[in-house]
Amino acid sequence: MSGPTQLPGFWAIVPAGGAGTRLWPLSRKGSPKFLHDLTGSGRTLLQQTWDRLTPLAPDRVVVVTGRVHAPEVARQLPGLPAAYLLAEPSPRDSMPAIAWAAAVIAARDPEAVIGSFAADHVISAVEGFHAAVGEAVALARTGRLVTLGITPTYAATGFGYIREGMPLGVEGAPSGRAVVEFVEKPDAERAAAYLASGEFRWNAGMFVVRASVLLELLEQWHPTMVEGVRALAADPERLDEVWPTLTKIAIDHAVAEPAAAAGRVAVVPATFGWDDIGDFDSLAGLLASDDGDASDDGDASVGGLSIVGESGDVLALDSTGLVVARSGRLVALIGVEDLVVVDTPDALLVVPRARAQEVKGIVDRLADLGREHLR
Amino acid sequence: MSGPTQLPGFWAIVPAGGAGTRLWPLSRKGSPKFLHDLTGSGRTLLQQTWDRLTPLAPDRVVVVTGRVHAPEVARQLPGLPAAYLLAEPSPRDSMPAIAWAAAVIAARDPEAVIGSFAADHVISAVEGFHAAVGEAVALARTGRLVTLGITPTYAATGFGYIREGMPLGVEGAPSGRAVVEFVEKPDAERAAAYLASGEFRWNAGMFVVRASVLLELLEQWHPTMVEGVRALAADPERLDEVWPTLTKIAIDHAVAEPAAAAGRVAVVPATFGWDDIGDFDSLAGLLASDDGDASDDGDASVGGLSIVGESGDVLALDSTGLVVARSGRLVALIGVEDLVVVDTPDALLVVPRARAQEVKGIVDRLADLGREHLR
Repeated sequence: MSGPTQLPGFWAIVPAGGAGTRLWPLSRKGSPKFLHDLTGSGRTLLQQTWDRLTPLAPDRVVVVTGRVHAPEVARQLPGLPAAYLLAEPSPRDSMPAIAWAAAVIAARDPEAVIGSFAADHVISAVEGFHAAVGEAVALARTGRLVTLGITPTYAATGFGYIREGMPLGVEGAPSGRAVVEFVEKPDAERAAAYLASGEFRWNAGMFVVRASVLLELLEQWHPTMVEGVRALAADPERLDEVWPTLTKIAIDHAVAEPAAAAGRVAVVPATFGWDDIGDFDSLAGLLASDDGDASDDGDASVGGLSIVGESGDVLALDSTGLVVARSGRLVALIGVEDLVVVDTPDALLVVPRARAQEVKGIVDRLADLGREHLR
Repeated sequence: MSGPTQLPGFWAIVPAGGAGTRLWPLSRKGSPKFLHDLTGSGRTLLQQTWDRLTPLAPDRVVVVTGRVHAPEVARQLPGLPAAYLLAEPSPRDSMPAIAWAAAVIAARDPEAVIGSFAADHVISAVEGFHAAVGEAVALARTGRLVTLGITPTYAATGFGYIREGMPLGVEGAPSGRAVVEFVEKPDAERAAAYLASGEFRWNAGMFVVRASVLLELLEQWHPTMVEGVRALAADPERLDEVWPTLTKIAIDHAVAEPAAAAGRVAVVPATFGWDDIGDFDSLAGLLASDDGDASDDGDASVGGLSIVGESGDVLALDSTGLVVARSGRLVALIGVEDLVVVDTPDALLVVPRARAQEVKGIVDRLADLGREHLR
């Protein structure tokens, strides 16, 4: 594949987890968000992540996923070597997953720089992504833990934030800056203050670091986890014995926050478009702007009707919003405004875009109704 | 069956036709409105019509339907004798259907009084209906063509109107009045004037008349039709030969309007609830008032969520409107207001109640989309 220059010694880790509950009934426990082509590109989110990373790290992409999803991941990524598909016996949050992959990579390449990128994010302007990762790798070689910081476009309360410090002036990483601190998801007032200050970026959980540095940092706060993942890298047969002993914790809490407090973290500002497709409103906005239907001010609530799936199955008169047509049935809409209609073979969802976050409430109630199999 | 006194010599005719296009995708060309249980009563509209009429005319109900629907009509009405199920080779509007049934009945009972009642209307307060038919039969015995006039509840533009004249003082029909004229569906301004005047009733197409009088009136304006239907009554084998020769015309134009002009028509005011379920808004209003969810002022736009079909398949949070759940799938709604969602195995419709009349526009477009089989 031609494209950007590959980054020697750089390995990509793709944690492929998370249910995507707010994208029910498209995303299910048994078939989570990353396994779906949500944007109608012809590639699933996992495949799009793969396509973004392989130019930088050909033959050096490691995917960590739940054991139950491993066969489908292998099917979707025919270029992924079996040795680089790590199947977790149970979900233990992001730190054990990334540490395991880091130990596997460090055993092969002690000087490796790793980058961790979730399987269910959408990124546009991929050249900007490649450039940012290039800077992050240069910064990581100086021993820092580097994060890619997303430029906030609104006062989001659904993301953690990164407070930027001074420029670092590292060669090959002109936009790199120190990170003063990570802050938790703020309330609306604080989010507005963060946005206004210009000092904050969203934490999208994208970390670039030397594998050895990550394990060294982790060792300070979770030494038994490092022991465990090194044992797994040496002998994969011990997985079912070792895995349950690893502390269930996110990389942010386990390493990034304490490392930032210790002055070991840097940030590279993202110049690319990023979306974690948190709910159907977010998906509708993303598709509307892709289609050029939205106004240029970035207001995702403006626009026509976006369709995921078979557009030939949708018959819409004077309607706006999002239709996901995945049942093969005809979906007919008349005069609905900013409505989300998700049509799958066994469940239908109808919700206004403005209330798309409440989909989780439906999923929570499925068990009460004896419909747990639809989760 | 106990209940109201039967009306000796009274025969009921049930024209079971009409596609109910505005109730798509529930109602289809191949499975029209009258074959469905739209109100969740456990009985289809046709069966409800049967249940209403058999107490008045046990063993004297004749159903006229399209040949394609005859097997399903027979299945739904196991008490209907085969000789009283008249199957039209093609639709020729209401006059040939009613005249054919009248001729069949007149051949058996020359003194018969017939009443024609569409198979797809909903009637509440059935005692009032029975009383009105009783009065209509008494009036019909005087040689008049009698219609049941619905008291208008709003300035409807979708119905024809009947202008009432003087009380007739016929014994057994205390509320009977002369009919001055039938008027076509008015525009909004004229409809409001009709409503305000108090002189008008809706024409619901319910006619009661001696079979011999109907045929005599018809003979004045359509003599060959009378000849044709008498031939059919004498020899049903001639159906395919005779049927295509009958003029395609509605009973209103063929007989009722000219007879009114000739002073031969009377009206009995309806004291029962009546609805022709013209669209899903009308169905939602009907169900909301049945459920006691609506306010008492008769505003059908007030109320909660009405469900037709399996209520166990519907999971609704903070939603109002109407769900028709007929696919077996889970239908999940969040925060939708006065929305109609009709879920069938091969087509889904989503439309606000206020725009339910536009459903016809979808049906008209199915052919363009190569989906004619869904009509």
